[in-house]
Order: sequence, then structure tokens, then C-alpha cells
Amino acid sequence: MNPDDLKALLTNLKNDKLSVDDAMKHLKKLPYENLGFARVDHHRHIRQGFPEVIFCQGKSVEQIKQIIERILACNCNILATRAGAQIYEAVYELNDQAVYNEQAATITIEVNPQKKTKGHILIISAGTSDIPVAEEAQVTAEILGSRTKRLYDVGVAGIHRLLTQETKLIEARVIIVTAGMEGALASVVGGLVDKPIIAVPTSIGYGASLNGLAALFTMLNSCAAGIGVVNIDNGFGAACLAHRINILGEK
Amino acid sequence: MNPDDLKALLTNLKNDKLSVDDAMKHLKKLPYENLGFARVDHHRHIRQGFPEVIFCQGKSVEQIKQIIERILACNCNILATRAGAQIYEAVYELNDQAVYNEQAATITIEVNPQKKTKGHILIISAGTSDIPVAEEAQVTAEILGSRTKRLYDVGVAGIHRLLTQETKLIEARVIIVTAGMEGALASVVGGLVDKPIIAVPTSIGYGASLNGLAALFTMLNSCAAGIGVVNIDNGFGAACLAHRINILGEK
Amino acid sequence: MNPDDLKALLTNLKNDKLSVDDAMKHLKKLPYENLGFARVDHHRHIRQGFPEVIFCQGKSVEQIKQIIERILACNCNILATRAGAQIYEAVYELNDQAVYNEQAATITIEVNPQKKTKGHILIISAGTSDIPVAEEAQVTAEILGSRTKRLYDVGVAGIHRLLTQETKLIEARVIIVTAGMEGALASVVGGLVDKPIIAVPTSIGYGASLNGLAALFTMLNSCAAGIGVVNIDNGFGAACLAHRINILGEK
Amino acid sequence: MNPDDLKALLTNLKNDKLSVDDAMKHLKKLPYENLGFARVDHHRHIRQGFPEVIFCQGKSVEQIKQIIERILACNCNILATRAGAQIYEAVYELNDQAVYNEQAATITIEVNPQKKTKGHILIISAGTSDIPVAEEAQVTAEILGSRTKRLYDVGVAGIHRLLTQETKLIEARVIIVTAGMEGALASVVGGLVDKPIIAVPTSIGYGASLNGLAALFTMLNSCAAGIGVVNIDNGFGAACLAHRINILGEK
Amino acid sequence: MNPDDLKALLTNLKNDKLSVDDAMKHLKKLPYENLGFARVDHHRHIRQGFPEVIFCQGKSVEQIKQIIERILACNCNILATRAGAQIYEAVYELNDQAVYNEQAATITIEVNPQKKTKGHILIISAGTSDIPVAEEAQVTAEILGSRTKRLYDVGVAGIHRLLTQETKLIEARVIIVTAGMEGALASVVGGLVDKPIIAVPTSIGYGASLNGLAALFTMLNSCAAGIGVVNIDNGFGAACLAHRINILGEK
Amino acid sequence: MNPDDLKALLTNLKNDKLSVDDAMKHLKKLPYENLGFARVDHHRHIRQGFPEVIFCQGKSVEQIKQIIERILACNCNILATRAGAQIYEAVYELNDQAVYNEQAATITIEVNPQKKTKGHILIISAGTSDIPVAEEAQVTAEILGSRTKRLYDVGVAGIHRLLTQETKLIEARVIIVTAGMEGALASVVGGLVDKPIIAVPTSIGYGASLNGLAALFTMLNSCAAGIGVVNIDNGFGAACLAHRINILGEK
Amino acid sequence: MNPDDLKALLTNLKNDKLSVDDAMKHLKKLPYENLGFARVDHHRHIRQGFPEVIFCQGKSVEQIKQIIERILACNCNILATRAGAQIYEAVYELNDQAVYNEQAATITIEVNPQKKTKGHILIISAGTSDIPVAEEAQVTAEILGSRTKRLYDVGVAGIHRLLTQETKLIEARVIIVTAGMEGALASVVGGLVDKPIIAVPTSIGYGASLNGLAALFTMLNSCAAGIGVVNIDNGFGAACLAHRINILGEK
Amino acid sequence: MNPDDLKALLTNLKNDKLSVDDAMKHLKKLPYENLGFARVDHHRHIRQGFPEVIFCQGKSVEQIKQIIERILACNCNILATRAGAQIYEAVYELNDQAVYNEQAATITIEVNPQKKTKGHILIISAGTSDIPVAEEAQVTAEILGSRTKRLYDVGVAGIHRLLTQETKLIEARVIIVTAGMEGALASVVGGLVDKPIIAVPTSIGYGASLNGLAALFTMLNSCAAGIGVVNIDNGFGAACLAHRINILGEK
Repeated sequence: MNPDDLKALLTNLKNDKLSVDDAMKHLKKLPYENLGFARVDHHRHIRQGFPEVIFCQGKSVEQIKQIIERILACNCNILATRAGAQIYEAVYELNDQAVYNEQAATITIEVNPQKKTKGHILIISAGTSDIPVAEEAQVTAEILGSRTKRLYDVGVAGIHRLLTQETKLIEARVIIVTAGMEGALASVVGGLVDKPIIAVPTSIGYGASLNGLAALFTMLNSCAAGIGVVNIDNGFGAACLAHRINILGEK
Repeated sequence: MNPDDLKALLTNLKNDKLSVDDAMKHLKKLPYENLGFARVDHHRHIRQGFPEVIFCQGKSVEQIKQIIERILACNCNILATRAGAQIYEAVYELNDQAVYNEQAATITIEVNPQKKTKGHILIISAGTSDIPVAEEAQVTAEILGSRTKRLYDVGVAGIHRLLTQETKLIEARVIIVTAGMEGALASVVGGLVDKPIIAVPTSIGYGASLNGLAALFTMLNSCAAGIGVVNIDNGFGAACLAHRINILGEK
Repeated sequence: MNPDDLKALLTNLKNDKLSVDDAMKHLKKLPYENLGFARVDHHRHIRQGFPEVIFCQGKSVEQIKQIIERILACNCNILATRAGAQIYEAVYELNDQAVYNEQAATITIEVNPQKKTKGHILIISAGTSDIPVAEEAQVTAEILGSRTKRLYDVGVAGIHRLLTQETKLIEARVIIVTAGMEGALASVVGGLVDKPIIAVPTSIGYGASLNGLAALFTMLNSCAAGIGVVNIDNGFGAACLAHRINILGEK
Repeated sequence: MNPDDLKALLTNLKNDKLSVDDAMKHLKKLPYENLGFARVDHHRHIRQGFPEVIFCQGKSVEQIKQIIERILACNCNILATRAGAQIYEAVYELNDQAVYNEQAATITIEVNPQKKTKGHILIISAGTSDIPVAEEAQVTAEILGSRTKRLYDVGVAGIHRLLTQETKLIEARVIIVTAGMEGALASVVGGLVDKPIIAVPTSIGYGASLNGLAALFTMLNSCAAGIGVVNIDNGFGAACLAHRINILGEK
Repeated sequence: MNPDDLKALLTNLKNDKLSVDDAMKHLKKLPYENLGFARVDHHRHIRQGFPEVIFCQGKSVEQIKQIIERILACNCNILATRAGAQIYEAVYELNDQAVYNEQAATITIEVNPQKKTKGHILIISAGTSDIPVAEEAQVTAEILGSRTKRLYDVGVAGIHRLLTQETKLIEARVIIVTAGMEGALASVVGGLVDKPIIAVPTSIGYGASLNGLAALFTMLNSCAAGIGVVNIDNGFGAACLAHRINILGEK
Repeated sequence: MNPDDLKALLTNLKNDKLSVDDAMKHLKKLPYENLGFARVDHHRHIRQGFPEVIFCQGKSVEQIKQIIERILACNCNILATRAGAQIYEAVYELNDQAVYNEQAATITIEVNPQKKTKGHILIISAGTSDIPVAEEAQVTAEILGSRTKRLYDVGVAGIHRLLTQETKLIEARVIIVTAGMEGALASVVGGLVDKPIIAVPTSIGYGASLNGLAALFTMLNSCAAGIGVVNIDNGFGAACLAHRINILGEK
Repeated sequence: MNPDDLKALLTNLKNDKLSVDDAMKHLKKLPYENLGFARVDHHRHIRQGFPEVIFCQGKSVEQIKQIIERILACNCNILATRAGAQIYEAVYELNDQAVYNEQAATITIEVNPQKKTKGHILIISAGTSDIPVAEEAQVTAEILGSRTKRLYDVGVAGIHRLLTQETKLIEARVIIVTAGMEGALASVVGGLVDKPIIAVPTSIGYGASLNGLAALFTMLNSCAAGIGVVNIDNGFGAACLAHRINILGEK
Repeated sequence: MNPDDLKALLTNLKNDKLSVDDAMKHLKKLPYENLGFARVDHHRHIRQGFPEVIFCQGKSVEQIKQIIERILACNCNILATRAGAQIYEAVYELNDQAVYNEQAATITIEVNPQKKTKGHILIISAGTSDIPVAEEAQVTAEILGSRTKRLYDVGVAGIHRLLTQETKLIEARVIIVTAGMEGALASVVGGLVDKPIIAVPTSIGYGASLNGLAALFTMLNSCAAGIGVVNIDNGFGAACLAHRINILGEK
């Protein structure tokens, strides 16, 4: 059940267009539905502004399908992350509106098209190899309802590639910076603008990059203030936070 | 030079109330002033919304005093963090408006009182020992111009202390969570609300807390989305980010 | 040889129903039997309350079969953990009572059905992906003789899923909490009840989860007292400890 | 308020010996009392079997005194850990029943003497240097109401010191093992008995002991099952868990 | 060239049975032979008591074959470690005296049978899974000329398996202990005897075993003195050291 | 566009052999060209002395091909590192001058043969297994324009292999040392000569080598001064630095 | 009781020069004596070839004095390590034969002068700062009965300092190498001789030396075989092992 | 003995102005002088271009004085690093030409003034707190004979402070970048110029800076090629390498 549906239902109840019993029937799935292996959190949409997202890694195709069915039954949009092509095929059989973004490894089903925000989130990648993480952020932000723009491959090894785009930095309401290796880009962007910045370290690199820990620590120690860091490769989480911030600027 | 002064100066120049030479004189300190050991970044106020902040750790009293003098000369507010009592005494001699918050270890001089935001930042501490970090965030947010509220000692060992305060969580525009030891509070708060959350791990704990790294990793791995993490004990950085977010919701 | 058989044998010897020579013959395998590559610890059942358990990882199928044969020859129950399907097939050929739990990756042969405890162990999983570890604990506890109940997918991202189940927490004698990612669930459960809690970090997560180390450190630093932690993914060890505690409450 | 007082109060209310208003007055401090810097969790005694314990490290003497006053006002026993001599002096001024255990660095005030358990907890130390941690466990267990016995300096470098004491291992209901350096003692004890064992790594050692991390990892990887591990030097936590287990065996 | 051949050559030269030119021809390969990708250290046999050993991991089959050909050309014994079956087949084609130990993953060619030492090295494994490392040590020690005995699967989870074998510990001149998981066996053996002990941590374990680092740190922190530690899984290195020690006791 | 072409163009413009419009057309690709997924940094050749190098790991074959096409269009040499055979085949189709070094995993296309330096870089490998990293350095240095010499398999286990080559150390202008395992070779070389030394730790080793971190830390802690360290396995980076140093000695 | 005394006592008993009761009286302290806080292991001398050694760190002066009194009462030599000057003063009051080595921080009381071995242990230090650890090894080896020689400050930054001393390496029976920073000396020595080598990493260094971990890992990864490693700064342990090896070569 | 003196001596010997005996007397201190606790490496000046440098940390004042006396006796310049004020006083008594740089904590005695290089080393610090490390590099480079320039407090939080100084970057022959916290400055500088860059991570920072490890890893993972990294806070080592590079460009 999405928030709009809930509001309508409560209004109908108040205006005597709905009996208490019928209201009960609609609401009985709150706050969650127990599938045995999973408790689908139908209340999350109301509590947190978006429905439960399926993190596919470590779940079987069968489990993913069942969870999606339950969420669709509540007329909510679907976002599944870390989804391989095989999972997409199974989901597509379930619902042919399912869209697959191969680079981002995301599946989306938009049964309730969101009205997009006026302000937008700028998503930056330091290198070409960081793009999959940036794309996960992009897909997530869009399905949550935020407009997004992209600025890819502007890492500090050729800093003029970033500096010539300073206007793009200033036009955004929130900025997501994805960077692997030494992850220095977040600090440089952080020193240029007064926007909230979400930094996403990526696992791109080798040797002393320690699978992304080096970039993570770079970002946490940034001498530029105003940067919030999320887990390595967590484009999804960055977009959730960026969206929550972005909607504060609407109205 | 603060942004209002700059605007006035440029308007005067445009309206022929100021000669180019005089404008030059006022502006010559842009973008920074070289003290030899430090380049005071006078442009930061305009570029980033607040003047350069002095991180006292690792600087001599003499260096700190010189930097503060230069910033005051530009009619800007002062925030100095990680300041011991000895540093405060030296600063107080310089300017008797200097205010010391002992728990936060901050010195503030508010020569330009800020108009406060309507929305506020809620600052939560998990335990009593996390309060110094929370206070650093509180002082920082206030001098930047954000209203703040506090909710202290509501850690997960007695989760009803948090749950009975759920209204306070909902009323805030942004939430800062400071927590040491296992740092689980950020995840719990993150699961309850749809606000942007800034999580600050603290170095409180012992043994396997690894001086705050355990709490840091807890927060980065949070299963609740929408949480941005800053460095261990970095109340200042959390407040900078929270303020940047908070002002998006004004007007 | 299981403890009941040993008691009968000694009673028979005492009552002259058995000659010393015959008793010797039965006991000669104590305290262990040398297979060259393994010393099967037949005494462990008597010393520790349950027979030797076969940890399959790193052993060849042939070695596993030989060890199981020797234990079965002593009329003891079999528990093999971390067993792939291939191993199960080989064991099944040996003994068609062998039961395979695919999620838990365990093989059990219950030649001596245990009388179950009156009190029970509650096994909680934070997410769907943590279930294999929870199931390893469940299978282990049951073959050791403890009754168990399950409560799955009640992680802190939607804490109402746990809070509405508080009665289940109170009814249990011992609680096992399996959680990956940030592992915060153990602290929250620990703050709600006065039961002994065994926390099992799982390797579920990515990036800064460090293959389960983040959850491990969270649990070790828990601000809730009364929590004992076992190795990452060690559902088996958690169940052993939980069972030892559970039987203290019998009689 | 301790559980016995609460029961009496509710009985009086039921039997009309107390007005609702008076009951309200007594209960109003539930579930916690806000001191600003701390929310004293008066409900913890009822919920978890013992009152809030004061971890002194990182708290000011003044804060500690205020928390103790509030707990004493509820007629509950006091346990303060990690308390230096200076803190003891301040607490002693407050209440001259305060007892200081210098090795354990604990302060106790027993206003409500506990009836001790019949079964006992055996507290083992590997070396002389581990005794402070063992003593913290001993003091904690006793004030919670558990009988305890000690077995000190029986580390594996001279394993006969342990083996000659095997009876003591068998007589205990729960065993706490404190060990620093390589921490191997927990595994050896774990292989000898079928009791629940709580292992406490200590920070004793140097170099590759990594301030107790080596002992911690040893204990987590123990090839003996049935061992729950707590944080480095956390004698208090070990005793809490041991006590929860110990009381299961009473009645 | 092995040391005996060198001695004969020099004697012949002295006794005029060999011309200087001919001696030169034989010696010209000293101290090493450059294959471009490898400098075969022919001098090592004389300098260090055994010829160069081929560590196969990271070398191509072709490279391994060329190195072995050069060493065989000097009439020296061959030891190749970390050798897969494929490598063995290639070496066998080269020389059909090549012997493969599958568990140890070693290839040996004994062209100069060694006279074995009178004293022997005892090689202990804690568990069945540690045997491959123990076997690498066994094969190495034997080809170097040391007698060996084995004592496998005597880990501390059932310490009587070790204690009943105490005579075997006393009879050995040097002891190698291989153990994974928590690696406690080395400390226990170290506390029982006054022999030099070489401890080999193995990568057996999971989770907090950190691929053998936990066992490594256990062994380095051993409270029993007289233990030398080698790299994780380094059965070869342990045997080299044990052999060097063992031959001190000959004559 | 390479620096020579740029110089010619500017000279022509100055001498009126080229119109401003035509110059503009040639220069319009400066400073970079946006492919969407990559911003090809055409300016890098001028700014840094060599064109953008393609790090193939994490890029698709299609992306690599497009980037190479754009660089070739500017008449610049190509260096692609970490390139599998499959990538080479695709690049070879594009341009049949492409040369593949299998050990180094590099692809080079030399459309503008460089004049080689008079001084040379000596590239040393400690073992046979370190050669691939050494070769990556060799290929890189040569395409950048430096002469190189090789000295392979001279690790400290047989230090005479190095000492007999001391002349080669003295003849070089810069030395690159690649070494895995304990990485001690860099310190030994550093103690013998007064040349700038670039140390490259390799991931060769096992167990406590921590995938090259052990060698990395060895090199960083070298008691011999004058050693600069690059990332693990980063033969490319070492050669870039060595080349920059080498050309200082020309003229 | 030392082994010689024990032998005499048993001979007297056998030859009827001692009554069983008197023998009992002498032996009653075997195998250990319980001081409450310590179990003095009187049996260790017989079992391990030297009496219990007192590691002073973490013990009170009073505890140290009591342990020394008990060992002296058995007519055994005393070795106390990590002893500050204050401890020495207290021990000196107890027994004025106590000798203090300030650099080594050791106290020795030699009540039973040992006959020294014919072969000797060579103790090498890489730098001047490593000498305290080397001295701890030297004092320990001597009191155990081994002859020692020293070779200090011969680190790899000036390798000729070592190479000119090669004879000293060859003359020794066992070699102890102490080295901090990058710890490369052990590998170089290991490549030069065929002696058993005990490597002791020291905590000398800064930054990436990680308090000795860098040197530790260097030594564990040594490409020279035949090196056993002990804990950081553990000169004592190295000497125990070296002595056990050294005495194998006697007779 | 410095190289010029050596050349003169050999010339005199050749020209019969010096007897072999007298030459012997002058040369007898080659290659080093044994003080017992230190082998002063008199040959290092000839072999490596500068005399032995005294790293004071971990050496006694007496040891430092003796080493300095021996080096001065050879008419060589003195550089002592990590020297506290107390050490300076002792050295000053020895030789009143001794100069102390308090920020750098260095002592220099220039008995043989060096001719300075024409090219210079540019030493950059990211922040004010990094200056002590930068100064150690500056003092070292100057005494070795390199000209230096400084550029302090130009970190990436205000990147215009660096970009406006681009000319200074271009004018230098070698660049040393010192930076703590996230250490991003090295990458940015590395992307701007084609000079050899030596990056020095500093231990400035807190929490996740891990005492400089974060900056170290940032620099090792730099996406800008041509950067050599030295140990944390190792301004001395950076200057040695920079000087070796700088002198290549002379003549």
C-alpha cells in the first residue's frame, strides 16, 4: 500500500464511504507480511517514503519472486539491486514492465509513476570503471522520484575535466561522488561547492586499494567538510540519502 | 569578508559609489591571505557558506591567534574546534566576546549573529560519554545558523528511551546520531524515520571497539538506507553536512 | 559409545552380568580410535554431552565416510556440517537414514532419537540471507536434544517486526541471534530481555562488512550486557553453547 | 525501584491499600529519569534482572555521583566499573557503605543483599596479569547474586596446573575463562567439560598480541564448541552472561 | 654440483689428477646459472646444505622444467612444492624417478639418496584438515635427510589424544606443530617438553580465522617459550629449520 | 595531438601559415573529448609528457576500443595495461601494428617512434614470479622513451647473485626493484648505490604476505633512504616515475 | 628445586640415605605452589630445562617479590624480564646478588652458576635501537647456560658491515637476528648460512612500521628458508629457542 | 672522510706526496668504525653521496654524541633528525656550530658547506599541521646540497590556493608533497605536472586517519602516475630521494 492509497482509504472511512470492516481488510497487511523466510515490510513506504527494496545478493530467485509479488500486490513500485541477468529473466516472466539496467544490475517496475522533483541530484564518477556504481545510484534516485544528471570520468588525474564543469556542480541541489582507487575526487568537489555531498567509495583498484577501503578512508578523512560517506559500492544507499535531502528543497 | 559585505561593495562599485581602486583594496585579500604557515581562505565564506574553521589540534597557540585575527579582520564569525582551555585563554585575550564550550572543546566568536533556520537539526547521543561529540555538532550547527535540539543517552541497551521520543525524531528536519561502542543506534533511528541522517561514530569504548572503528563499520553497513557517515568523533563535519541539508528546507 | 550404553555396561559389570574381558572389549575404543588421518574421539560423547561432529570443509569424501562409519559403529548420532550435496550422496549410500538440510548444509543421522527439552531455544535471523546460518544452528540444537523455535527476518531496519514479537523473546530460555551487515539486532534483543543471548555474526554484506568482521565487532562491543559471541557464520557453535545452557533449566 | 518493591506496590493497588494517584507517584519515574546528560533506566532492573550499571570511563565524577544518587533513591544495588580511586572517594562521601575492589576497579553498594545461588560460577585466569579482569567478573557475578569460585594462574604453559584441578571444572555450573597473550586456555577448558564457557580475552601481552585482539581471535576460532566470547577485558559482561545462565539452573 | 662432488674435485686438483682447466670447466656454473627468467643458484647446496627448491606457484610449467633440468644436470636432488598434478606429469616426462605426494603437492627426485639422521623430527597436526601442510613438512624433511615420525589429529578439543602420546613428544629431537583455527596446540606442546618447536599456522578455518592469521598470532603470542613460527601453510620452511636443528644433534 | 604537432601548429599560426579558424579546428578537442562513459584527456600528453594510458581492468572491450580510436586519431602512441588476450585481439583488429607482451599483459601501438634516452633504467626482479610486474614496467618505460636493462631473479636468498652484478647497478641512472614475499631486495639495493630507486611490491607470496601488503610495508620502512614506493604490482606507475626522473639526466 | 638436586634426592632415597617421609617433604612443592595470585611452577625446571621466568610487566612489585622468594627457596636461578629500575631495587633488597642489565631491563640472580656450552649463539642487531631486545636475548641465553657472542648495528643499509663479518656467522651454532623497521636483515643472513636462525622483529620504527608488525611480516615471508620467528621484541623467547637448539650440539 | 678528501689523498699517494703507511692510517676507518653499540658507516658518504644520518629516536643522548663525534672527526656534515631540545643542548656543547630547527626537530652542523644545485625542489604542505614534516624535508634537502622552495597550506579543501600557484609547480625540478588526513593533494599535483613527485603521508588527522595510514593508502592508489611514496612523516627520506633526482638534472 502506498501513502496516497492510505490517505484515500482513511478519508473514505472518515466520510463513511467505507466500513470499518473493509478498512480493516485493506490494512491487515500492516505492518508486515510474513513469508516465513522474509517479513515484507509494507509499512516502510509510509514510514520511510519508499517501499522495501530487494537486495538480491544472497537470496534465491524463488525468494526474490515471492517478495516482488507481495509488494506488487500492494500497488507499489519495485526496485531490486545487485540483480544478475538470470534474476531479471525470472522477474520479467512475472511482470513484463520490468526494466533491466545491465550496468547498474538493477530491475525496476514502475507501476506508480512518480512525479519528479524540480531540483536534481548530480551523479559524478571519477573514472569509467566507477560507472556501474554511479548507475545504481541514478536508477535508485529516479525511481524514488528525484531528477538526476550525470557527470562521468572527471577524476583528479586530469582535474581540468572537473573544473570546466563547475557550473554543473553549482546547479545541482545534492551531489553524489563515486570514486575508487584513492577516492580523492570527493574532497576536491567538497572544496568547490556548498552543496550536501554524498561520497561513495568504489571497489575499483588493486593492491593497496584494499577492495575499496582506501577510497573509503580517504572520503572519511576529507579535509573538506559537508561530506557524508556510505558503504563501498553502495550507489543505492547514496541515492536514498540524496533523495531524502533533495525533496527537502521542493515546495 | 562575508557575503553580505561583498554584495554591498559590488553594488557600490556598480552605482559609482566606490572607485575601482578602493574596491581593489577591499578585495585584494581574495581569494586567500598568506601567513607563511597558513593561507587563510577568505573566499571560503562566499564559496561554501561559512568562513574557514580552525582545527586547533596540531597548531601552536600563536598560529591559532594569527589566523583568528585575520578572519576577524574580515568581519566573519569564528569557530575553533578541539581547543583546550589554554587556547581559549589566549583567544579570550584577543577578543572578549569569545565563548568557550568546555564539553565540546569549541571556541566561538559571533561578530555577525546569524538568523536561525525555522527547521531544526536533532542531535542524538547514544550514551553519556558520547555527549562531547554531540556538543561539538551542536555548537557548530548553531554558529552556522541552524536551530538545534538535543536528545541524549537514548542508546539501544534500553530502546524504550528512544521509542518514547519518536515524535522528536519526526519533528526534526535532519538528524545527527552520535554513538560509540557498537554504534547500533544509527540503524535503529534510520529504520524509524524518513529524514536524512548523519551518523557520527565516537571513539567511546574499549578493546574490540578499536577506537571507534567498530562503530564506524556498523554505521557504514547499516541495513537502514539514507544514512551518511562521517569520521570518528567528527561532530563538526556532521553539523556542516546537516546544516547544508537543513537550509535546503528553508523558504 | 553413548553415555546410556556406558552406564548399562558398567552396571552389568558390577552385577556380574558381564565379564571383565567382555567389558574390556567394549571399552577398548576409549578414549579414541586412530584412523591415521583422524583420531575419532569416542570419549567426547561422555565428556561433553554429544559425539564428535564432522566439519566437512577441508576433508575428502573418503575421510568423511570413514569417520562416520566409526561413529555409527558406536551407536551414536551423526551431525556433519558444511556438507555439499556431493557429500550427502556419499553418506546416504552409507546409511539411508541420513537427512540433508540443504539451506543449513547439514547431514544428520539420528540412530538414537533424543528426548527433547521442555524449554526451547529461539533462533532469530536479521535478514533472509542470514537464514542458512540460523538453520545450521537449528539443526544442531535439535540433534543435541533441544527444542527450537524460529523468528526470521526481523532486522532493525524495520524494528516493529521485532517489537511485535516481544512475547516470543520472553518465552524462550535461550536466544540465538544471527545477523550480518551491521549486526545491530543482537544489541536490540539484548536490551529487551534478561535471557542468555548467543550472537552469531554472518558474512552477509559487502564492502565495509569485511566478510562479517563488522558484524562481529558490533556484537562484541554491544552496550547490552549478557551476550556471548561466536565465530562468523558459526551456527553450529552457537547451538552447542545454547544447548548446554538450555539443559541447565531442565528438571 | 527493584522488582520486589514493584510487586508489593501493585498488590497494594489491587487490594485497595493504595490509591491510583499514589501508585502513579511511585511509578512516574518509569521507564527512565532524564538527568539531561543521562537517562537513568529505572526499568532495567525489572526488564533485565539487574539495575543499570555505571561504566565510569569517560564520565565525570559529578555525572557518576548524580547517576548513583538516582539509583540509590530507588533502593537498588550499585555497581560501578572501571572506577579509579578518586571516583571511589567521591562515591564514599555519598554513601559510606560503598566498597572498593582495587584490582577489579569496581565500586559496589549493596543496599539490598541478594540471596546467593546454590550453583556457582568458576572464574579462571590464565596468568597473574589477567587477575584484574577476573576480579571484575567476580565482583559483578556476586552482586548480581551468583556464588563464585576462583582458579587463578593455570595457563597452558604448565597445563598440569589445570589438569590437577579438573574436579573444580566439573563442579561448576558455568565457567568464565580470562586469558591474554595467545588465549589458548579457553580451548583447552572447552575440550575438557560440557559446561557453558564464557571466554574473556584480556589485553595482557605485547607486540603481536595487538592489545588483546590475538586472544580474541583465538577464542572465536576455538575448535572446542560451546564457548561464547565477550569483548577484550570485559569481565563485567562475562559475569552478566554467566549469571543469566547460572540462575537457569536454580530451582 | 653437490658438496661431495665438489670435495672430490678439489682433492683431485690438489693431487694433480685434474688440470686447472678441467676444474674450471666443472666449476664455471658457480655460483649460479642465468636462464634469463631465473638464476639457478648452484652454490646454494654448498652454502646452505641443500639445493635450490622450486616453489611452483606463479611459475609456468616450462620455467619449472628448465630449472629442474639445470639442477639435475648438477647431480642434485629435486624438491618442488605447491605442484599441481599437471606439473607433475610434465616433470615425470623429464625424469621417471619423479615421485608425487598428492596431499603434500610435492614432487621429489632423489638422484643422490641421503643418509638419514639418527634422531628424528616429530610432525604433529591438530586436525585432519591440517595434514597437507604436515605432509609438505614431512616430504621436505625426508629429502633433506632427516628421519620423521607423524602424530596427526591430536588437537586441543580432545587433549587426552595428545597427553596419551607424551612419550612420542619426548622421543623426538625437534617437533613441528601444524594447526589451523585457533592454533592453540603449539602452546600446549610447548608447555610439555623442552624440545625446539617449530609452529606452522595453517589457513584451515573460516570467518575470524582470517585465512590463518588468527592461528599465526596465537603461535607468536604463545606463553610457552621456545617456539619458532613460520609463515601460514609453510610446511616446507618449517622442515628446513627443523632439519638444520636436527643435524646439530647428530655425531 | 602530441607536443611536437602542437608546437608546429602554433608556429604556423604565428607565421601566418595558418588561419585562426583552422587553428581552432585543430585545437577544439582540447582539453578532452567526452565519450559519455569516458573523457579522453587529449591534453595530458602536453601537460604530463605522455598520452592517456588505458587501464583495461574494469572496462569493457567496446569502451577500450573507442578510447584507443580517439587517441590514435590524435596521432599519439598507445599503451594499454592489464589487457587479456581477448582485448588484444579486438585491438589488433583495429590496428595491426598493435604489439602484445603476454607476460606484461600490455598492448602497445607506436605510431610515433620515440627517440630513446641515452641513460637507462635498470629493472630488477627478486624472483621469477615477479617478472610480469617487471615486464609491465619495462614495456611502459620503453614506450615513454627510456632505454631499459633487465636484471631478473637476484633476490636476497642468494645475495651473491646481486653482488656480482654491482656494476650494473652503478651504470643505471634510475633503478626499479620489483619484489614480492618479504620485499627485502629494495633495501639491499638501496644500501649499495646512490641512484633514485623505485620499489614495486608484488602480490607474489602466500599467507602472511597479505597479497603484497607485507612487501609494501617492508619497502616503506626501508632503512636505506632514497626509495620511493608505488602500489602493489604497479609496474606501470614505477616506470612513469622512473622515466620522469631519467629524462632529467638527458642533455 | 633444580634437576641436580632432584637427582641427588632420588639417589639418596634409593640408597636408603633418605627416608620416604623426608623425601616427601622435599618433593611436596611439586608440581607447583599456589600463592593465590600465582601458581609457581616448580616442575618447569625439570620438564623444560629452566625454571619459571618472571615477566614483570603487569605484575605488582609485591607479587614479583613473592614469586622470586618461592623460586629462590628451591635453589633455582632467577630471570626476571621487562623489569624497571624500581623493581630491581625491591629485588635487590631481597637478595643482593641480583644483577640488573639496564638496557635489557632484566634482573638475574645466579645461585647455581651454569656450566656454559662449548658452541655459542650469535646475537645480531640491525641497528643501535634494536640493542635492548638483543641484550634481553643475550642475558637470557647466558643464564640458561649458552655461550653468546654479539654483532651489533650491521643492518642492510650498509650491507658490507655484515658481509665483512661472514666468518662470525659461520662460527656460530645458532643465530638470533633482531631487526626493526623493515626487518630485512633476517632474510639476508638466512641466505648466507646454513644455521638455524631465530628472527626477532622489534618495534623500532614509525608510521608504516606498525609498531613492529611490518618487520614481523617481513620475517615470516622470508624467501630464505630455515628461519623461525618469535613475537615482536621477544628477545627472551628467541633465546629460549636458541638455547634449546644450541644444547643439541653439545657432546 | 668526504669524497673530496678521499680524492686528494689518492692523488697525493699517486704523486708520491704521501707514503703508503700514511695513506693506510687515513683510510683505516673504512669502511666503518665499531663503537660497540653502533658501526659508523664512514663509507656511506662515498657510496651514497651523503654521510650517515643520525635518527635520534630510540638512541640515548650519550650514543648520539659519540656517533656525531666520530663523523665530525671525518670532516663530514652532520644531520640528526627527530631530535628533541634536550639532545640539541648536548650536541651544542659538543660543537657550537650546531643549528636547531625546532619545527623540523633537526640538528645540522655544516662543516663543509655544500655548493647548491641550480634546479630546486619544491616542498608543498597540504595544511599548517603538516609543516613539521615539510620542514624536515627542507632541512635535509638543503644540507644534502639541493636548493628548495616552500609552498605551504594549499590543501584541496580550497583548491584555488594551489591552482593560482601553478607556475611554482612548473618551475620546480622535483616536488615533495606532504599531506595528512585524506592525503588527496598528491594526486591533484600529480595530475597537473610532469615532474617526479615524492609523496609523504603525515600522521595528522584523527579517527579513520589511522595515524597516517589513510593518507598513505590514498597516495599509493593515486590515479595520477609518477608518484613515489615514502613512509608516514618521513620528510627525511623524501628529501633524500628528491635530492638524488635533483642532482641528475645538474650539468
